[in-house]
Amino acid sequence: MKAEIVAVGTELLLGQIVNTNARFLARQLAEIGVDSYFQTVVGDNLDRIVQALTIASQRADLVICTGGLGPTRDDLTKDAIAAWTGRRLIYDEPALSRIERFFRERGVPMAESNARQALIPEGCDPLPNDNGLAVGAALEHGGVRYIVLPGPPKELEPMFVRYARPWILAQMPQHTPLHSVVLKFAGIGESALEQKLIDLIDGQSEVTLAPYAGDGEVAVRVSVKASDQEQAMRKMSGTLADIRRRLGEHLYAEEDIPLEEAVVRQLKARGLLLSAAESCTGGLFAERITSVPGSSAVFAGAMIAYTNEFKIRHLGVPERLLSGDGAPGAISEETARTMAERARELTGSHFALSFTGAAGPDPSEGKGPGLVYIGLASDRFPTETYRLQWNGDRQSVRLRAVRHGLYVLWRKIGRE
Amino acid sequence: MKAEIVAVGTELLLGQIVNTNARFLARQLAEIGVDSYFQTVVGDNLDRIVQALTIASQRADLVICTGGLGPTRDDLTKDAIAAWTGRRLIYDEPALSRIERFFRERGVPMAESNARQALIPEGCDPLPNDNGLAVGAALEHGGVRYIVLPGPPKELEPMFVRYARPWILAQMPQHTPLHSVVLKFAGIGESALEQKLIDLIDGQSEVTLAPYAGDGEVAVRVSVKASDQEQAMRKMSGTLADIRRRLGEHLYAEEDIPLEEAVVRQLKARGLLLSAAESCTGGLFAERITSVPGSSAVFAGAMIAYTNEFKIRHLGVPERLLSGDGAPGAISEETARTMAERARELTGSHFALSFTGAAGPDPSEGKGPGLVYIGLASDRFPTETYRLQWNGDRQSVRLRAVRHGLYVLWRKIGRE
Repeated sequence: MKAEIVAVGTELLLGQIVNTNARFLARQLAEIGVDSYFQTVVGDNLDRIVQALTIASQRADLVICTGGLGPTRDDLTKDAIAAWTGRRLIYDEPALSRIERFFRERGVPMAESNARQALIPEGCDPLPNDNGLAVGAALEHGGVRYIVLPGPPKELEPMFVRYARPWILAQMPQHTPLHSVVLKFAGIGESALEQKLIDLIDGQSEVTLAPYAGDGEVAVRVSVKASDQEQAMRKMSGTLADIRRRLGEHLYAEEDIPLEEAVVRQLKARGLLLSAAESCTGGLFAERITSVPGSSAVFAGAMIAYTNEFKIRHLGVPERLLSGDGAPGAISEETARTMAERARELTGSHFALSFTGAAGPDPSEGKGPGLVYIGLASDRFPTETYRLQWNGDRQSVRLRAVRHGLYVLWRKIGRE
Repeated sequence: MKAEIVAVGTELLLGQIVNTNARFLARQLAEIGVDSYFQTVVGDNLDRIVQALTIASQRADLVICTGGLGPTRDDLTKDAIAAWTGRRLIYDEPALSRIERFFRERGVPMAESNARQALIPEGCDPLPNDNGLAVGAALEHGGVRYIVLPGPPKELEPMFVRYARPWILAQMPQHTPLHSVVLKFAGIGESALEQKLIDLIDGQSEVTLAPYAGDGEVAVRVSVKASDQEQAMRKMSGTLADIRRRLGEHLYAEEDIPLEEAVVRQLKARGLLLSAAESCTGGLFAERITSVPGSSAVFAGAMIAYTNEFKIRHLGVPERLLSGDGAPGAISEETARTMAERARELTGSHFALSFTGAAGPDPSEGKGPGLVYIGLASDRFPTETYRLQWNGDRQSVRLRAVRHGLYVLWRKIGRE
């Protein structure tokens, strides 16, 4: 089955809201193994909605409309469905009673237009709205299935999960659902990752591989059609083992979690404590770690040593490292090393990371933007430092530095 | 001019990401007076991208493609444009040198596929990418204009604003440009703001007001058509003065900058130094302040005191506040006050903010998630504390706490 989502609403065309419904429905469809090749957004205009339905029903056999079920004269989705399928709109009695009760209970007079929300195309299956007044609809016409859902996510989502999804599944008797595993990688870029897997991607048949990148993270979705999760895992096991063998030093999770969460879990499993000393990243590393619920069990805290004075007074970095003739300066391997070691000692943690560099846009200490030193101190091995150079704006340099710090930490803890 | 946005990417069809680019571009187009009747999303498939281009160019005279400019063989947008317009793809020399330099500087070998990002359709106007490697393109073919933009928002947005938008405006000779001022507000929600301006919004004619919210920020865009900026400012001056009068205590900038930037500017103008002590926000406040270029002149640093031990040892919070019978605990007004005062004293700064609370999802010290205390210490007035309670998940509680801290700081500094 091939689906197309048709989102109706001028507010989408004006950029007043983001089409998060499309994302929700796309995920749901992928989960039940319904393919999706196109999505359309169209404004609150009857002719153009019909035009969108015409195109969608030529290239899909399931058309899901969202939005345009409100009480105002701008809400035209059901009128368009009626026009396109040549059906009348009739009142759904349960929905109409619900609307009448809603206004009665509130003691507010019900406007004529409110009854519009109870309209459905004749001969359809109504989809109840447990969180609002607009009833949805599901119908078949000319070999194509149509589903009509309200726009507000808190109405659309339960309506889809409770009523529309079972309706779709009932139309797919031979259905074999798609099962997926998301593999998350760090310390490797999207193209390098693809190079390492190119033969698997090119040779894919039953088990499919889809690399993707986003928010500075690289992932591969491995999918297969199977009757249940257990059968799916059996079918995927060879491919997964192969990927683990090739990319084990980068594969930090076999589920869709961020790197910081993998690090917090590792620390927790081993009962280890972490701390940090940050200069150029300005708190971003600590913020990422503490974004993980329960991180307080593994994270002592951090010193955000933004000025040299703070580094000297609160981290105990020797002044001779920072200034004076021949001093390496704040942006140096020596300072990164000392910051990490002092943070570890001060907090009594097992690991401490440090970040010092020039995030940009201007050079700092005569060092060009994008140069970052990372220090990693531990009670179990000599302090390590990493010198890194990136292009990009201030925020992307900071993000990359933090991701790299998390990556070296993840690798080190993994060997404990 | 009528535009259609064609977003390319299987990750959109699978619901892995939300199409925020469509929102960004839709707003931009609305701003320059370009209408938009449809948006399309299509996967990484050459035939289907061409199919989407075919339909779009029948119903629009400006087709904006986003995404699919990466280095992998899944990235097919330029190939589709080339196929549809019957042009060859050639290398854009500046873009190619940029890619080569990028790999040379990193000491990483450049894969053959990376050069693909420098390809452009022959005879087009290349659109430089200031934040990435994939060059964009603008061209006219058969009376329809095409613009090709990269998928990552941090590349797409500056490319559109700096290069694509002027290119589009140059195609609209009779165009009276729209001039806008963005007013940014803090400490007030979108509906409360709208209520305060409802008569202006309802009565708008030549000067239009569009309130919008996003990323926890509330803004009003005031716009007018005018031949130049000076004429526009003259036409808007009455409305702007009225808004300033009504909402002055919330209006922190008359340009589109985040609140932290307004705070850094205030501190800089007055030669004041800031520091922080963070518990539940875990570095997010320091991260926001240091995201502003040049913040090192006004920000000493911060203590991320995530555990009680850190609070005692490195901030000097008395143990009796944190534990023992009848102790107020870490999440309390007294602790917030002490954290702020100690951070200020330790760093010798003029102001210090503190954050302590239960970010969630679980209660902390028996205090429900969403409860946050903020402390503000200064060398010029007695320490103030704020008790706040929010609904929402961990990250949104942390963001709201930081925004509220920035807001109280902004108001205080403004009175200095």
